[in-house]
Parts: sequence; C-alpha cells; structure tokens
Amino acid sequence: MEAQRGGKDGIEVKYIADVYTGFSEKFGLPRQSGIVPELTGRIVFRPEFRNPDAIREIEKFTHLWILFDFSLAHRDEWSPTVRPPRLGGNRCVGVFASRSPFRPNPIGLSCVKLEKVSGTENEGKVLIVSGIDVVSGTPVIDIKPYLPISDCRPDAAGGYSDEMAGYELNVEFAPGVYEKIPENDRDAVTGCIKSDPRPSYHDDPERVYGMVYKGLEIKFKVSESTAYVLSAEETDNDS
Amino acid sequence: MEAQRGGKDGIEVKYIADVYTGFSEKFGLPRQSGIVPELTGRIVFRPEFRNPDAIREIEKFTHLWILFDFSLAHRDEWSPTVRPPRLGGNRCVGVFASRSPFRPNPIGLSCVKLEKVSGTENEGKVLIVSGIDVVSGTPVIDIKPYLPISDCRPDAAGGYSDEMAGYELNVEFAPGVYEKIPENDRDAVTGCIKSDPRPSYHDDPERVYGMVYKGLEIKFKVSESTAYVLSAEETDNDS
Repeated sequence: MEAQRGGKDGIEVKYIADVYTGFSEKFGLPRQSGIVPELTGRIVFRPEFRNPDAIREIEKFTHLWILFDFSLAHRDEWSPTVRPPRLGGNRCVGVFASRSPFRPNPIGLSCVKLEKVSGTENEGKVLIVSGIDVVSGTPVIDIKPYLPISDCRPDAAGGYSDEMAGYELNVEFAPGVYEKIPENDRDAVTGCIKSDPRPSYHDDPERVYGMVYKGLEIKFKVSESTAYVLSAEETDNDS
Repeated sequence: MEAQRGGKDGIEVKYIADVYTGFSEKFGLPRQSGIVPELTGRIVFRPEFRNPDAIREIEKFTHLWILFDFSLAHRDEWSPTVRPPRLGGNRCVGVFASRSPFRPNPIGLSCVKLEKVSGTENEGKVLIVSGIDVVSGTPVIDIKPYLPISDCRPDAAGGYSDEMAGYELNVEFAPGVYEKIPENDRDAVTGCIKSDPRPSYHDDPERVYGMVYKGLEIKFKVSESTAYVLSAEETDNDS
C-alpha cells in the first residue's frame, strides 16, 4: 500500500562547485546565512558543471539556496541530540530540530544573495554571493533559486532561534587596528564580530579570541555586550 | 591557496525517512510546497533514525525544511537547461535557475508546516505536515527547522516565478461529484485543481485530465480560467 520508492537506502551526490570565502577556519563564521550581509563568497563550478547554460536566467533571482557538504563535520556515527552553542551549551535539542552540521547526512542549507555573475578566464562563470556562512573550500551539491512564493514564510515561528533574534555586540577597535584591515573587508570583519562568535557559555572578559579572515589574525576580548578588537596581524599562512 | 575540501567528488547520503501523501502519481501535485496548504503528508522515520530524541523540541517550530530524493527523476545524464512547465514549455532556463527535479543531484527542497507530532504504535513518532508537494513514498534525506532569521527574505525577487504569483483557476463541480469526495479531502483536492496541474502550453477545453488522489480518480476539463470537475470515481488500485 505505502511503497517506499527508490528501493534502496540512499543515493550518491556529486560535488558541482566549491565556495570560497575569507574564512579558512570555522571560528568567526556567522552561525547562519544572511546574518552578516557584508560577508561575500565566490562559487566556482567544477569543470564537469561549468556550463553557462546551466545558470541561464539565474540573475533574475536576487537570492539563491546553496546546498553543501559540511565537509568539516563528517563523523562515522550520528548523535540524536545536539547542543546549539547559542543555548548555553547545556541544552540538548534533537538534531532534526537544529541546523547543526553534525547530522545523519552532513548537508547544509544557506540562503545567500546573488550579487553578480562574473565571467572569468580560468574558472568560467562564477557566482559572487553575499551573506554566506561557510568555510572556504566548502563543496556544493546544489544551487536553487529562492522562490518567495514557497520559501518566504513571514508567519513562521523559529523556536529557540527566536530567543537570539536581534542580539549583537558593539564592536570597538584599539587605536590603529581598524586601519590595518583592508578597507573592503572592514564591514565583513566588524559584522562577524558583532554576531558574537563565542560559544554563549563563555563569559570571561580577559579571554582573548582569535579569528582569521583572509590571512589576517584578528584578536578580540568581550566584556558584557562590547567586543574590543585588540590587534589585526598578518598570519604566516595566508590560505 | 584555495584548497577544495573533502578531497573527493561527492558523498553518499542515506534515507532517514519517507513521506506519504495522497498522490501515488505526479499529476495533480502542486508545483511548489505551500501552494496548497490543505495537502498533508506523514513523515515516517526509517527504523535506524526512529529515535524520539532526534526530534526533541521540533514542535517549537511551525515550519520545517524537507530535503528529499526526487526518486522519480533519476537520470544517467544531466541537462544544463530545463523547460519549466509554467513558462509555456518552450522557454529554456538553466537547471540551477530552476527547481526542476531533473538536476545533477536529484535533491528537492520543500517548506512544510508542522501540524503535529503523532505517536504511533508501529512507526514511532510521525510528523504530520501540510503544504506538501511530493509524491507518496518519497525518500527524505534531511529535516531542518525553518529559521525566519535566515530563511525568510521578504525582499527576494523570484524571477520568472513571480509571473505566476497569484494565478489560480476557479473550480466548479458537476452535480453530485463534490459529495463523492470524502469530506476531509475536499479542500486538498480543490486546492490542487485550483493550482492548475496542466502544463501551461495545453489549452484545449475539451481535453479531459485525470488526477488520482487517495485512490479516487478525479476527472476535469479546463476552459479559460475555470476547471470543471466531471467525476470522482474509485480506482481499482487504491495505492
């Protein structure tokens, strides 16, 4: 009566593209897409999928869905519950009631803004997007247009995520530090710190955090609701 | 410098659940999720993932994302362009500028409303959802909460999909036909016909279409902007 389809246990998915962002490590990344609109990424199609016809009319959409592999979160076993870092680290919720990367299938879903389609010499047409929330080199398995008619649900309630809506830090810079950040990157860096990368159970005003953005190591402390950026220095490794 | 991660060409994903709806065939299904709010589905976890902890706190969210396998759309080759049926069938758009099931990785994305979490004797906890748009038996690869903060983008423009916003048919029933549809299914059936299942290049007022919903074959014709439902009869096969 109620036949399962496919008749097997799963499917293989192929990487169609990779996203490149300023973050080669996870710390500092916004926890969801759209939180830091200034944070941009480049989506480069893999050669087999580098066909301009495959993105025909894509620029008529302002927003896209990126389905990607949480490639840093592969585990042999899955856990039914996770502890969202923003909930104090000691409250467990079900993995299917979370956007945690540690899930039975490590697939992420981000909504990004399409800034432009850029023609390049070596990589074909590249999508420049903003509001991204993934580490550089993340493999992409699908790109879909955002359809307001089905995807935009203003009446939706966001569970525990609503508790965090509107929360952000003030960001202040020690003298001379702001100027050390390339002009084009200042808004993105400020936005990422504003979104508070700390796990929420951390509350030590003396603790120094380091976030690496485009090869620049940015150190900051947080006291109450203000982040103080202490330094911004080139790292040896600019990857 | 810009290392790809994962170091391979893709990953395997496992089916975690199956969705059961009133449609055992594709014709009549809404083209996107949320279009027919009355259309419900049951998401049944596969035994390995049937753990009540995995959905802890899920009922605090009103809407969920379902990532699923377009199991009826598997093809050995992929085509860079598709012809969305609503665009007259002769306009090609890029596959990544469409929600077509025929894509390099046949993965679909639907936003559904969580109506309730139902405890069952044989299937564990089952999710009852509405606004579904998939054929019965569709295998699910992930369930995520809808987070308004990142997923709801009221400023998004929907490209060619905006051209269709608000379009629907009037639905009229021949005498006695409405009463043949079980009371609980009348709104769903009416909603599906209202959303106009015909390919948009069809325009023959004499052509009879047949849609099978929960074993009931519903026949209708369309003239201008009105659908006339001619009959509703049990089919031999009630799957």
